[in-house]
Amino acid sequence: MTLNVYLSGEIHTDWRDQIIAGARDLDLDIAFFAPVTDHGASDDCGVAILGAEERKFWHDRKGAQLNAIRTRMGIEQADVVVVRFGEKYKQWNAAFDAGYAAALGKSLIVMHGADHQHALKEVDAAAQAVTETPQQVVDCLRYVLTGALPG
Amino acid sequence: MTLNVYLSGEIHTDWRDQIIAGARDLDLDIAFFAPVTDHGASDDCGVAILGAEERKFWHDRKGAQLNAIRTRMGIEQADVVVVRFGEKYKQWNAAFDAGYAAALGKSLIVMHGADHQHALKEVDAAAQAVTETPQQVVDCLRYVLTGALPG
Amino acid sequence: MTLNVYLSGEIHTDWRDQIIAGARDLDLDIAFFAPVTDHGASDDCGVAILGAEERKFWHDRKGAQLNAIRTRMGIEQADVVVVRFGEKYKQWNAAFDAGYAAALGKSLIVMHGADHQHALKEVDAAAQAVTETPQQVVDCLRYVLTGALPG
Amino acid sequence: MTLNVYLSGEIHTDWRDQIIAGARDLDLDIAFFAPVTDHGASDDCGVAILGAEERKFWHDRKGAQLNAIRTRMGIEQADVVVVRFGEKYKQWNAAFDAGYAAALGKSLIVMHGADHQHALKEVDAAAQAVTETPQQVVDCLRYVLTGALPG
Amino acid sequence: MTLNVYLSGEIHTDWRDQIIAGARDLDLDIAFFAPVTDHGASDDCGVAILGAEERKFWHDRKGAQLNAIRTRMGIEQADVVVVRFGEKYKQWNAAFDAGYAAALGKSLIVMHGADHQHALKEVDAAAQAVTETPQQVVDCLRYVLTGALPG
Amino acid sequence: MTLNVYLSGEIHTDWRDQIIAGARDLDLDIAFFAPVTDHGASDDCGVAILGAEERKFWHDRKGAQLNAIRTRMGIEQADVVVVRFGEKYKQWNAAFDAGYAAALGKSLIVMHGADHQHALKEVDAAAQAVTETPQQVVDCLRYVLTGALPG
Amino acid sequence: MTLNVYLSGEIHTDWRDQIIAGARDLDLDIAFFAPVTDHGASDDCGVAILGAEERKFWHDRKGAQLNAIRTRMGIEQADVVVVRFGEKYKQWNAAFDAGYAAALGKSLIVMHGADHQHALKEVDAAAQAVTETPQQVVDCLRYVLTGALPG
Amino acid sequence: MTLNVYLSGEIHTDWRDQIIAGARDLDLDIAFFAPVTDHGASDDCGVAILGAEERKFWHDRKGAQLNAIRTRMGIEQADVVVVRFGEKYKQWNAAFDAGYAAALGKSLIVMHGADHQHALKEVDAAAQAVTETPQQVVDCLRYVLTGALPG
Repeated sequence: MTLNVYLSGEIHTDWRDQIIAGARDLDLDIAFFAPVTDHGASDDCGVAILGAEERKFWHDRKGAQLNAIRTRMGIEQADVVVVRFGEKYKQWNAAFDAGYAAALGKSLIVMHGADHQHALKEVDAAAQAVTETPQQVVDCLRYVLTGALPG
Repeated sequence: MTLNVYLSGEIHTDWRDQIIAGARDLDLDIAFFAPVTDHGASDDCGVAILGAEERKFWHDRKGAQLNAIRTRMGIEQADVVVVRFGEKYKQWNAAFDAGYAAALGKSLIVMHGADHQHALKEVDAAAQAVTETPQQVVDCLRYVLTGALPG
Repeated sequence: MTLNVYLSGEIHTDWRDQIIAGARDLDLDIAFFAPVTDHGASDDCGVAILGAEERKFWHDRKGAQLNAIRTRMGIEQADVVVVRFGEKYKQWNAAFDAGYAAALGKSLIVMHGADHQHALKEVDAAAQAVTETPQQVVDCLRYVLTGALPG
Repeated sequence: MTLNVYLSGEIHTDWRDQIIAGARDLDLDIAFFAPVTDHGASDDCGVAILGAEERKFWHDRKGAQLNAIRTRMGIEQADVVVVRFGEKYKQWNAAFDAGYAAALGKSLIVMHGADHQHALKEVDAAAQAVTETPQQVVDCLRYVLTGALPG
Repeated sequence: MTLNVYLSGEIHTDWRDQIIAGARDLDLDIAFFAPVTDHGASDDCGVAILGAEERKFWHDRKGAQLNAIRTRMGIEQADVVVVRFGEKYKQWNAAFDAGYAAALGKSLIVMHGADHQHALKEVDAAAQAVTETPQQVVDCLRYVLTGALPG
Repeated sequence: MTLNVYLSGEIHTDWRDQIIAGARDLDLDIAFFAPVTDHGASDDCGVAILGAEERKFWHDRKGAQLNAIRTRMGIEQADVVVVRFGEKYKQWNAAFDAGYAAALGKSLIVMHGADHQHALKEVDAAAQAVTETPQQVVDCLRYVLTGALPG
Repeated sequence: MTLNVYLSGEIHTDWRDQIIAGARDLDLDIAFFAPVTDHGASDDCGVAILGAEERKFWHDRKGAQLNAIRTRMGIEQADVVVVRFGEKYKQWNAAFDAGYAAALGKSLIVMHGADHQHALKEVDAAAQAVTETPQQVVDCLRYVLTGALPG
Repeated sequence: MTLNVYLSGEIHTDWRDQIIAGARDLDLDIAFFAPVTDHGASDDCGVAILGAEERKFWHDRKGAQLNAIRTRMGIEQADVVVVRFGEKYKQWNAAFDAGYAAALGKSLIVMHGADHQHALKEVDAAAQAVTETPQQVVDCLRYVLTGALPG
């Protein structure tokens, strides 16, 4: 059984790399998917491919719709969706992905710091696990796949 | 044809009242639903009914899960989900509701100020209409129901 | 049993009125829905409510997305979707609606002249009935509801 | 992750070959599906296998239903449906496929010339990307799969 | 709670009337639906409305597709589908309806004589109840609605 | 908005009556559904209507399948499913109903004493609220409908 | 693209072998599934594994339910369901499978002799192709997979 | 055709090993899945990974939600769900899994001793087969896959 895991949310720290490396070190049978994490490419992909726009609103729209092809595919094919809320920015797209995943009945693992706990209570309430560190996410995935506990 | 509309998001301004009043003035056949907008009740409902918790995390969890009964029902029964992002707070639950509604194939009308445009581009890209004012939302609903344009 | 019927397609002739009048004359228990048939309003609704656009592409997009709220609702609530292809224009939205309805498992009644038969063969093949006149559509609906045949 | 792509629409130019060649040159992991593009076979398959018909209507029906087996399978298995509208013909089957794909929640990439923009506004409004050239389609697919932009 | 019941199958005896009368005598809150039971109208509706056919095959096809609008609606709206297999004829449409209803997760009550038991074992195995008489069907429906047993 | 509530589980105490009376006293707009709670009728309905069986296994099967018509309908039409685990008996049908409701995405309110907490942890983990008394259930339903808290 | 094909219906002639051999000769990429075609095993599997029954009704029930595991799996995994109606027997299970497949939106190819045409008109009307011989079925499958016509 | 089988329920005897060994001895093409059967790990996984809880209720909740990721995946990917009810304990999670599987339309094989027959009648009534021994389960799976009967 290969576990399909989509890693949604924050793109400014290396949390995805940590989870992927942690899973690889444990030889876990997991296929990871993620959005495009090159911020510039993600913002400008629409106009770069489909033509420039004068208004920022449509510039953003073209990019967001193109990115949505990848995001929706990633969430729909996932067994588990991990959503990371970082320290900065609004990150509404992360919460949007969490809602989308929840409505599809996907298992949700949320990762965020303690200071965001109250603001994220509705998202946490839809999750199977609320974590703070990449290591905890790896431990959850290992347990789900193998039944082994850390330590 | 009665239009079922769920009004999700910000609870600190009277935008819901403006939309409901605007629709009533136009005699539109719309049934509005909304989350509990009494902030205190919404935060404490879980422990008030199901018993106190020492940890804030579980205090919040109990409340969020109880509120989720109403939110999910409201979204699932809606033809149109309006999601308002205000000037303040993280409002991740609003974005979560938008994602949930999008995954269910509901028509989405988003309302927010121009300054949030870039941060909300993924949410906007999933919407049928992006508005800035309650009047625009009322105009959208009137057009959908009656075909009439403003002015 | 009220029959919900959505009348999709051509907006330049009075075929909808003929069907509705025909059904009313027979006292059939049918609720009819339709897109906004005021061509000007339908084209300009987006910019009229949500703000002007310089590019015709986005002018059209805003309108088409607003109209889609009504169209999707109409098709999803329908028991039967009637799609009329007229003599003129491309009418790709009519064929789009037919495909949308077919994918949702709706019963489809197509109406068009004999000269369009070959070009519409894929649409016809997804339909329960292929008609040429509003009277035939009324006859189909009467039979479905009451079992009575014409004449 | 293999991307499944269905190439619907116009069968009189070599746009499919251009997209497939472009994807192969970039070593993209894409599986392409398409309708039968031999016009004669597509028109006559029904009667050739299932027996002749005197009336053209049923001749067409038999063929269209047989072709529909392949079309529906192709769309249902696709992650992305590309729909091409050429310069000529009614191409209602292309719009039908687009509606069918949209109702199933498939990502849609539409390709057509600027002159068809207004007539295709409802189809475009349901799409994640609107393109004019096979190269743009290849660029979209590459970005979705790899995050790389052209140039 | 109104119970929606579709009465599928044999049209040559008065079993539907007996069930409807039995339910009315007990004042049960049931809405009954059924196919068109006028054999002649059912056979000829297609050509009567949509035009004559030389080949019996297409004569039948036109009628069967028109009748299917009513049948599918009746099954989809039903809470319980009752399927009656009579003493005569092939009655493949009755078995088709039973399979259709089973695939949609509808509760199925089958009615047939003991001599058909072995031939109908697959249909019976998909049913909630296997009955022999209209009175048993009425008793089942009464029990489901009210909890009352006969006698 | 009428709330549809299915009351599943224990049939040997009057907990249903307490919830229904509590909701009526508060004038809550709730429609309650429940299984047949006459233990004898519930056990024997199958053979009473469909004929006696020598083996207890089939006696039970006939009854259980007839009761399932009502149970499935009740759960499928419910917005909220309340499942009560009493002090006695195995009550596997209550847990089965809870699993069935959870898989359909229904909101679940579980009611049981503290001594069953560990044994019911999987069921509780699928619930929006875990209660101990009928009053708490009424309080949950009132809050969901009206936003009012007790006291 | 491997085509998954379920071969339902008559088990007393070698039509399945003919289709499978025909497809193998053409090197078609098809995976065939079928019910257990050993009549004795199919009839007695339930009691052979799960214990004897005195009543033929339950003897049949046990077998039919066990066979249904395979049938449902076969239909649900199929892209195309071929249903064969032979010259003899009631074959209600074949019609039941056809209805089940139609409700799941599977492509249906029906095979039967001309004498059954009127009795099977409702089943035929739900099919993409109506054939008389195994060769025609092979020709349909080849065309769907490769676009090649016979001869 | 690989058969996916989820083995739910009792974790205190070696019934899973017997079934897996029996299937291996017969060279059956079956992929088995199961919950974590290490009782201690299953109970404590939540707090071991996600942090300790003072209240047993939340200790259990964290574990149950983590285990639910594996359980839901196992059931959703299964063609057949086998549910074993042992001699001891409440085993409400087994019945919950059975209900969950039934609602998803999975084939269900139940295994329990004769003494539990009356208490499990609702679960049995939703099953395709009711067995008492691991050998019977193996025999069912062999028959479904190969058509071979025991002995």
